Amino acid sequence: MVSLLFKKTAAKIGAAPGTLMHIGQQRIDRVRLSVIDYDENNIAERTVQTLDEALAFCDSPRTTWLNVDGIHDTEIIARIGRHFNIHPLTLEDILHTDQRPKLEDFGHYLYIVLQMLRYLPEEPDNGQVISEQVSLILTPRVLISFQESAGDIFAPVRERLHKGRGGRIRASKCDYLAYTLIDAIVDYYFVILEHVGADVDAAEEDTIEDPRPGTLERIHDLKREMITLRRNVWPLRDVIAGLSKQASHLIDPATIVFLRDVHDHTIQIIDTIESNRDILSGLLELYLTNVSNRMNEVMKVLTIIATIFIPVTFIAGVYGMNFKYMPELQWRWGYPAAWGLMIAVIAGLLFFFKKKKWL
Amino acid sequence: MVSLLFKKTAAKIGAAPGTLMHIGQQRIDRVRLSVIDYDENNIAERTVQTLDEALAFCDSPRTTWLNVDGIHDTEIIARIGRHFNIHPLTLEDILHTDQRPKLEDFGHYLYIVLQMLRYLPEEPDNGQVISEQVSLILTPRVLISFQESAGDIFAPVRERLHKGRGGRIRASKCDYLAYTLIDAIVDYYFVILEHVGADVDAAEEDTIEDPRPGTLERIHDLKREMITLRRNVWPLRDVIAGLSKQASHLIDPATIVFLRDVHDHTIQIIDTIESNRDILSGLLELYLTNVSNRMNEVMKVLTIIATIFIPVTFIAGVYGMNFKYMPELQWRWGYPAAWGLMIAVIAGLLFFFKKKKWL
Amino acid sequence: MVSLLFKKTAAKIGAAPGTLMHIGQQRIDRVRLSVIDYDENNIAERTVQTLDEALAFCDSPRTTWLNVDGIHDTEIIARIGRHFNIHPLTLEDILHTDQRPKLEDFGHYLYIVLQMLRYLPEEPDNGQVISEQVSLILTPRVLISFQESAGDIFAPVRERLHKGRGGRIRASKCDYLAYTLIDAIVDYYFVILEHVGADVDAAEEDTIEDPRPGTLERIHDLKREMITLRRNVWPLRDVIAGLSKQASHLIDPATIVFLRDVHDHTIQIIDTIESNRDILSGLLELYLTNVSNRMNEVMKVLTIIATIFIPVTFIAGVYGMNFKYMPELQWRWGYPAAWGLMIAVIAGLLFFFKKKKWL
Amino acid sequence: MVSLLFKKTAAKIGAAPGTLMHIGQQRIDRVRLSVIDYDENNIAERTVQTLDEALAFCDSPRTTWLNVDGIHDTEIIARIGRHFNIHPLTLEDILHTDQRPKLEDFGHYLYIVLQMLRYLPEEPDNGQVISEQVSLILTPRVLISFQESAGDIFAPVRERLHKGRGGRIRASKCDYLAYTLIDAIVDYYFVILEHVGADVDAAEEDTIEDPRPGTLERIHDLKREMITLRRNVWPLRDVIAGLSKQASHLIDPATIVFLRDVHDHTIQIIDTIESNRDILSGLLELYLTNVSNRMNEVMKVLTIIATIFIPVTFIAGVYGMNFKYMPELQWRWGYPAAWGLMIAVIAGLLFFFKKKKWL
Amino acid sequence: MVSLLFKKTAAKIGAAPGTLMHIGQQRIDRVRLSVIDYDENNIAERTVQTLDEALAFCDSPRTTWLNVDGIHDTEIIARIGRHFNIHPLTLEDILHTDQRPKLEDFGHYLYIVLQMLRYLPEEPDNGQVISEQVSLILTPRVLISFQESAGDIFAPVRERLHKGRGGRIRASKCDYLAYTLIDAIVDYYFVILEHVGADVDAAEEDTIEDPRPGTLERIHDLKREMITLRRNVWPLRDVIAGLSKQASHLIDPATIVFLRDVHDHTIQIIDTIESNRDILSGLLELYLTNVSNRMNEVMKVLTIIATIFIPVTFIAGVYGMNFKYMPELQWRWGYPAAWGLMIAVIAGLLFFFKKKKWL
Repeated sequence: MVSLLFKKTAAKIGAAPGTLMHIGQQRIDRVRLSVIDYDENNIAERTVQTLDEALAFCDSPRTTWLNVDGIHDTEIIARIGRHFNIHPLTLEDILHTDQRPKLEDFGHYLYIVLQMLRYLPEEPDNGQVISEQVSLILTPRVLISFQESAGDIFAPVRERLHKGRGGRIRASKCDYLAYTLIDAIVDYYFVILEHVGADVDAAEEDTIEDPRPGTLERIHDLKREMITLRRNVWPLRDVIAGLSKQASHLIDPATIVFLRDVHDHTIQIIDTIESNRDILSGLLELYLTNVSNRMNEVMKVLTIIATIFIPVTFIAGVYGMNFKYMPELQWRWGYPAAWGLMIAVIAGLLFFFKKKKWL
Repeated sequence: MVSLLFKKTAAKIGAAPGTLMHIGQQRIDRVRLSVIDYDENNIAERTVQTLDEALAFCDSPRTTWLNVDGIHDTEIIARIGRHFNIHPLTLEDILHTDQRPKLEDFGHYLYIVLQMLRYLPEEPDNGQVISEQVSLILTPRVLISFQESAGDIFAPVRERLHKGRGGRIRASKCDYLAYTLIDAIVDYYFVILEHVGADVDAAEEDTIEDPRPGTLERIHDLKREMITLRRNVWPLRDVIAGLSKQASHLIDPATIVFLRDVHDHTIQIIDTIESNRDILSGLLELYLTNVSNRMNEVMKVLTIIATIFIPVTFIAGVYGMNFKYMPELQWRWGYPAAWGLMIAVIAGLLFFFKKKKWL
Repeated sequence: MVSLLFKKTAAKIGAAPGTLMHIGQQRIDRVRLSVIDYDENNIAERTVQTLDEALAFCDSPRTTWLNVDGIHDTEIIARIGRHFNIHPLTLEDILHTDQRPKLEDFGHYLYIVLQMLRYLPEEPDNGQVISEQVSLILTPRVLISFQESAGDIFAPVRERLHKGRGGRIRASKCDYLAYTLIDAIVDYYFVILEHVGADVDAAEEDTIEDPRPGTLERIHDLKREMITLRRNVWPLRDVIAGLSKQASHLIDPATIVFLRDVHDHTIQIIDTIESNRDILSGLLELYLTNVSNRMNEVMKVLTIIATIFIPVTFIAGVYGMNFKYMPELQWRWGYPAAWGLMIAVIAGLLFFFKKKKWL
Repeated sequence: MVSLLFKKTAAKIGAAPGTLMHIGQQRIDRVRLSVIDYDENNIAERTVQTLDEALAFCDSPRTTWLNVDGIHDTEIIARIGRHFNIHPLTLEDILHTDQRPKLEDFGHYLYIVLQMLRYLPEEPDNGQVISEQVSLILTPRVLISFQESAGDIFAPVRERLHKGRGGRIRASKCDYLAYTLIDAIVDYYFVILEHVGADVDAAEEDTIEDPRPGTLERIHDLKREMITLRRNVWPLRDVIAGLSKQASHLIDPATIVFLRDVHDHTIQIIDTIESNRDILSGLLELYLTNVSNRMNEVMKVLTIIATIFIPVTFIAGVYGMNFKYMPELQWRWGYPAAWGLMIAVIAGLLFFFKKKKWL
Repeated sequence: MVSLLFKKTAAKIGAAPGTLMHIGQQRIDRVRLSVIDYDENNIAERTVQTLDEALAFCDSPRTTWLNVDGIHDTEIIARIGRHFNIHPLTLEDILHTDQRPKLEDFGHYLYIVLQMLRYLPEEPDNGQVISEQVSLILTPRVLISFQESAGDIFAPVRERLHKGRGGRIRASKCDYLAYTLIDAIVDYYFVILEHVGADVDAAEEDTIEDPRPGTLERIHDLKREMITLRRNVWPLRDVIAGLSKQASHLIDPATIVFLRDVHDHTIQIIDTIESNRDILSGLLELYLTNVSNRMNEVMKVLTIIATIFIPVTFIAGVYGMNFKYMPELQWRWGYPAAWGLMIAVIAGLLFFFKKKKWL
């Protein structure tokens, strides 16, 4: 489960703002730098060994996408910062892997931070959702993306760049590339919602047909997952709304219609989350009411049995008394009469329950 | 039940935006194209075989309504797109039958997407609500509508076009025709609300008079239906509000008063949905409290019976003991005295219950 | 109870907008037209037989109030529409007695639709609240009011017109007259709230002192009434706010301070409704908790009785066994010893309950 | 408890707006008029017998504060209205002691109506909160205040006026005096919140440590009090916000910083009310859950006792049967064996309960 | 626990605004004044004995930070107020240690009041959160900070000032210093949230695995802590938003990006608080439902035992009756037959429970 608190922030208390310190879990051994340099006609992809090599590409007149996998090497981040004149607070945010999605316009660059969610269905992760921070720095000719680990989420984008000769992605600038990356991340939210939706449906079926304590915990877990998703999606929507209304010269007007499209997707996601929340709240109430219903049923069985047998047991008890002078005991038909009395009591009570509609 | 998640979107992850791919259930065998071409005096309706035939009509100086039933043939959509210079994202949205209602202004055309809801009361659908996406493209002289199946919802509009010589519908342009189609769709929401309202009333009566577990499920289902309706109507209202405040040159000022009228209808619908939600929440609480009330009643019966008979059974038990020296057993009036004691105990307890108002 | 859904609208599906058709219950046999024609010095009131007669008055230079009781005669509505150049949608709304309160400015006239609520305390209506639509058309010199039945709610206004020579009502134009009618309608909401308030207080007393299932239904009914009132008052407030901020030349600035006063009244009404809703929600929780409390009490009685007598009954049972070799049975003091044991058990349990504070 | 509905309004239905009629409870025998007339150097306070005397003061060039205790004499109100040219609706509002706090700007005067709350801790009022309407009319040189009874709430203000020679209160105009009165009223809300806060804390302690039905009613009463306070404070905040943003020439810019200070106080009050509401809602849930918890405990005791003794009582019953041929009864060790069996059953059940953690 | 009401305010009722009186708990024996006077190259820190000494520093051309620990000496506050021309209301607010966080712009200075929260994990405070008011007065060249006690929260800031030669903190003016102090305070909220987060997780685990009454109280306490935190953080966010949008000439544009960063932190804090509130509400429901679930289980055990043994005990009772003529008693196989009957009844009931899935 994605942790609620942005924990490690506390570790930095008292440090000057802009102090570069990696706050988060290191997910990769070595920082990996890869560069794609392209224009409408040419494209070159390279995994470079040193930052200098990468920066050389960035100065080309073509559009350059510099992808950094792994952010624990503060030196590399600092050098990138100096080369592109990035504000220290931006660098700090890149290194703190616990940011809310946000958009900041520093004039000569836009800083976008997103949380990429991934669903790990297989063992041993067992349906866990993990979160990974993706930072984008959008400058006029270079897009720099920072990932915590070397995920494959941007692979389809790379492929489209390679194959897309003459297409919009190659003809456009960095802003369209940034849109493509954001779109790829947002698309993954749908995958998670699909899994969650299936879980909600299963929980609903269980609640109606066979509510067990496990069902209750499942509902609780799903509610918590919804809280986590919400925390990530609401600010994401604001980021994309900010981009699509952006007065920044870094965003081409032709890209805005595409950003509006991703914006619609985030609204769909929010809609689905809110609906799921509503349904889950309803399920909890339904569960509770179902439990009460069944307790009622249990109580009725107990009440019927006890109410029928307690009085007749009393009658049997009376005639089990050892008083010397008990005339009934000597009667010829005493025993059948006792049975008759007991059967009459039982019949009367059954009739009473019938009238109360308990039977 | 209308699915909550826009599922198939996940299937397209990684594809370039604007890739034409039909995402949804194919509901019709063959795409059917029909054209109505009219002005104040003349009208022609034709079901055409090829798109070329249809496009020929569209170039006439009269107002043309091109209706496309079935959207699984991406080639047709693509060609219409090229002919009217439609943005690829619009074409993509037409093909994805899971859009939230929305309005997009592309300058030379308006794109409106709506969800048409239909209630199927007969067997085997058994009161199911199905949703079908309707897309409208409003250009200055041509209105193109895309439906998933060949529904008859627009039949009354066609009839009015035919009969309406000299009326407003024939004298007006495409924007009024678009209004008429939207109005027809919104009117169907009222039909659904009527059915739902009857169901809510029935559930209310059941809850008050005879709450069963089935009632609980019915309430839950109705709550879910309200969630679904809400998801569709809130954005619908925004679409229509957008149209009626539209600065677009495609909307005639005279049409706006009609759009405001549909807008009022959507507000009525929202009002009714919200009131139903309030009532349904109240019903759930009422149900739960009713169950508790009845458990209370059951418990009282049990308590009264048990409390009365347990002590007297104990007395009977005492005199059923086999001690050699039990003086009472030898008494002449021992047995009647035991009865007297037991009757006194019963009377005392009945009095106690009377005082507690349990009887 | 005022129906939640605006039902009959569904009956009109597919009809052209502006088609005149009476949708609602006919509450009066014949349409009744009455005219009051006045200025500061003169006043004439007449119940006219034909519309022509009425329209003749309307053309006088004085202020005219044309009141139409009964709206089922579409021909009369249509003729009024033609005479005053009323938009077909307005006429349609007059005839559909299920409108939300709204205000529409058509330039040469304002259309105001309100729901008048009336509380019928006597048998056979038995505290029912009925709703009746009142439509007002405000033109520069004529105010037309449409009522569903011939109610007496406007009688005090008529009286003030007659008696008010030299007063503000006679000196002012139609807009002040419209204000007076709206004020009369809003005042009736206070009457209903008074009755509802008394009912809420009674329900509160019952819940605290003597909660019965009937109390629960009463609370539920009151909650539903609040939902209905809310549906009518919130849009009413918007209507009056709209009027008092109105840039329309039809509203005299001197009237606006009076409209603001009615606006304050609607806010008071909303305040009271919301407070009542809060209280009623609290009552339901209180009721449920009270039921639980009393079940607890019932359970304690049962538990105390059962827990005390079950063990001693067991002891009695033991000495009722018929084993041949049971030494205790032969003891001289066996029986008193058994009693001692049983009394000790009872005392111990009573002490235990005392310690648990159950006694 | 402050009544929720503004009841007497209903009594006036049909009257012309501006009709002067006292709607409310008369709380004082005779109207008392007092005048304070001051400037920086001089001050005169007088309790006058007739209105004429008072009005004479009002025409002095100094700042005059005319205080009216008791509002049931409509003639006095009417004459003040004529003298200062007050709008009839303002006079009506002064006389209706059920106004929401509001601010109205009539150009040549501001009308401010407030509800003063007072907590009466002693017997016989027993912690009741009573509400009294205070109306202020702020003209350039005269401040008129209307109170329902002759309260002492403004005494400290009078004292400060007397002692404050050379201070801000004497150097400032009416607007600062009005601020001082408002501040005095708002300060009293803090007193009430202190008492309420102590009650909430006591209810919390009771709920956690010793929940009784009385606690439940206390929580309900406090919730209702919160509803009442809220109804008064929210509009109060708007009034003061309105004053402090006021473009009115009647408010000196130097006074605005003081008004902002009272505004902060109202926000503190609202904050406290909302927090109390949250806490009280939590208490109700806590109470309900506590009741369930304790019912659970009661049920466990019952279940343990019943479950242990019912089976062994059965065994005793078996050997109490009178069959002629029951071999066990004749055994030498039959009786001890029966005890052994019964003890084994008891031990087994105790072990079972131990495992279930019920013991 | 931080008190909800700003209690002592009531003590001042009736006093003139701006009267200097310390309202709050005195937390330090003597007022301590310390001054740091710095520019890019030089820095001097001194703990001064008299205010005059401190004020001498303040007139230097360098940036001066005057820190006042302890605010109970109203004379010192008054003299500072006169020296810097501070509004009396500001001085009053400094002395009342119960302010909501707020920002006030008096033109020549900004007044910022914050609540610093500290978590005291060790005994005897035992996890208590205490609140301390920090007031900042930001003038062009002097920043004055008022603390209630001599806390060490600003120690890292002092250190950075000393070490930061050539860094931003030394090169910037007072506004950056003010930002640094605010940042230090906000950072402490994260520490508290970390502790609270751990407590919430523990409560969640308890609720799911082993719900006890203590868990319930823990949840309630955490909910209350969330209410307290919320009351402090929401206005804090507004303060910082106000600063970062500030048109005040006292805030350098270069500082605004840093203020936006703290603003983001407050939003993270609010997010976490709201999520915790959601989770805690869910926990309470989960707890209640868990209790119901377990009561259900208890009831089932009771019902099964009672339902099985009550009928067979009745049978045993019947054959314990002492009627003279009971043929079964004489049968050779009577006793085994009775056992057979009883076993059959038990088997039947077990089968019934199996079918009901209670076993």
